[in-house]
Amino acid sequence: MASQGKPMAWVTLATTDAYALGALVLAHSLRQAGTAHRLVVMITPGVTDTMRTQLSGAFDDVISVDVMDSGDAAHLALMSRPELGVTLTKLHCWTLTQFSKCVFLDADCLVMTNCDELFEREELSAAPDIGWPDCFNSGVFVFTPSQETFRALVQLAAETGSFDGGDQGLLNTHFSDWATRDISRHLPFVYNMTASATYTYLPAFLRFGKDVKIVHFLGSNKPWMNPQAGDASSPAGRFHAAWWDIYQSRVRRADGGHHFLELSAGPACEVLSAAAPAAPPPTLAPHLATGADCPANVSCLDSYTGSCCSRSCSYSRSRSASTQALDATRAAATSPSLER
Amino acid sequence: MASQGKPMAWVTLATTDAYALGALVLAHSLRQAGTAHRLVVMITPGVTDTMRTQLSGAFDDVISVDVMDSGDAAHLALMSRPELGVTLTKLHCWTLTQFSKCVFLDADCLVMTNCDELFEREELSAAPDIGWPDCFNSGVFVFTPSQETFRALVQLAAETGSFDGGDQGLLNTHFSDWATRDISRHLPFVYNMTASATYTYLPAFLRFGKDVKIVHFLGSNKPWMNPQAGDASSPAGRFHAAWWDIYQSRVRRADGGHHFLELSAGPACEVLSAAAPAAPPPTLAPHLATGADCPANVSCLDSYTGSCCSRSCSYSRSRSASTQALDATRAAATSPSLER
Repeated sequence: MASQGKPMAWVTLATTDAYALGALVLAHSLRQAGTAHRLVVMITPGVTDTMRTQLSGAFDDVISVDVMDSGDAAHLALMSRPELGVTLTKLHCWTLTQFSKCVFLDADCLVMTNCDELFEREELSAAPDIGWPDCFNSGVFVFTPSQETFRALVQLAAETGSFDGGDQGLLNTHFSDWATRDISRHLPFVYNMTASATYTYLPAFLRFGKDVKIVHFLGSNKPWMNPQAGDASSPAGRFHAAWWDIYQSRVRRADGGHHFLELSAGPACEVLSAAAPAAPPPTLAPHLATGADCPANVSCLDSYTGSCCSRSCSYSRSRSASTQALDATRAAATSPSLER
Repeated sequence: MASQGKPMAWVTLATTDAYALGALVLAHSLRQAGTAHRLVVMITPGVTDTMRTQLSGAFDDVISVDVMDSGDAAHLALMSRPELGVTLTKLHCWTLTQFSKCVFLDADCLVMTNCDELFEREELSAAPDIGWPDCFNSGVFVFTPSQETFRALVQLAAETGSFDGGDQGLLNTHFSDWATRDISRHLPFVYNMTASATYTYLPAFLRFGKDVKIVHFLGSNKPWMNPQAGDASSPAGRFHAAWWDIYQSRVRRADGGHHFLELSAGPACEVLSAAAPAAPPPTLAPHLATGADCPANVSCLDSYTGSCCSRSCSYSRSRSASTQALDATRAAATSPSLER
């Protein structure tokens, strides 16, 4: 239902090359599922030019967003609340008024089957968050681009901030009647199945998991950090394995032999790139390395320091510090069987 | 809205003296909140006569249920599915047709404020389960007693079993349109706030936790097992502390000096009872003991073996083995910060 003759689109966001890698796999999963809609990725200056080229091959539109250049409202709001920069970056999806309706997907999502029926839902449709299910999880949501909504969200952010420091708290405050108003705006959980649900309530997963349509790798256990989690014989593992299948078959081979990013958990991982870095570290850059110097080690994809290939090296997440802390807390609270 | 002139009731279930202790605190919390409705506890033979006397002082009705004596339908079903005995015990709440409408509360719930408005909801109203939020949690639900519904549930149990081995899986199968049909049947999460939510998504708890109406101590960390968890300064601790306040002020002093059950985490806990045991072990019985022989130690309330006062002693939960295993899994998955 493309009202006003405008197309509809899937939208995601990448603020670093690591999350851009997630976005690439996500895009290929949408293509593989045969979506009829456009694919859009919003990127920030944290994404290298080389990766931007990669994204252009998978998405219909690569749109640069820079919070401080995004218009008077956002600019003024951020003058007093600079900590909300990353949060507002995601909110820019509402400015994509060239589309009549969109579905936002976090870059750490994977589409398992065609989900174009989501575009029949109205704003704001989303699935419950397993931490506090009267809140929706903002990793997957249906929305209608609107400059007016964008301005309202920016104003809310400036006036009250976000109760969780991220976009989810802000969006739940703005769309505060989600829990009580209209059941059709509750997306079934299978459209935003948090990977940790596979062990939090395993019997339900075993009953309903076959119907999962979109997997959300919430928390710190991103598939691009851990190839060895892709054990297809475990409930959660099959989703990791599916992510890796697409990475291996579509992303790795799509760079014309440059092997821009080569992921491996092993010590002898091979990373080859013929392209010169577009930007120096700390932004992750293409890099010639083998063995112990491999910069593509799972632990240091987000902030390459030049001495990695060690699981213990620190990495900084690409999302805001507050969201990062939140994710870490939730991962610790929900995934001991995998991570402890 | 007491249709047909029948009263309405809160209903709970106790299958052991330990859960009966939870039921006692729950009843006092309902009285304290000024409910206008009757209080009903269903008990099985696992509850001692002495505890039954205690329950009679707190509840309006103490109703014995015994699955094998509960009518032809249940009897016949259990002939081939004996493992569903405890599950069917809970389902007996539908046979309470002397009431026009009821709210079931697990015995490990605590009512924080008057919730009589729940009786304005229709069957089946319940809050989402945090493990798989398209399922409702069966710790708190609004229902309409009906022999017909009871028979349908028994038949379903006999024919298909329960996907999680407990009542929750069976009820979600029977009321399978809960997730999609009517938003008014989604109770706000504050009516069944799983204690673990306080740390799974702490910012949401800090935002909405002040409105919590019913706390559900899901998992193995029952308040009666751990007095020292009642640290009112922590988010979850204040609920444990509230439980202990009622226990100390209403339950402990209500036994006319018999001190039927005395809970303490310390090694010198005192357990005094003037009443003779109604049944020998393994059913928990009143017991004279002090110090190292204390049978009321937190770890062995459920299955007194005579050699307790050790956190490492095994205990068997009062619920079905399958539900017990499920609870243990979920506790491990959701409460590492408290339990690991």
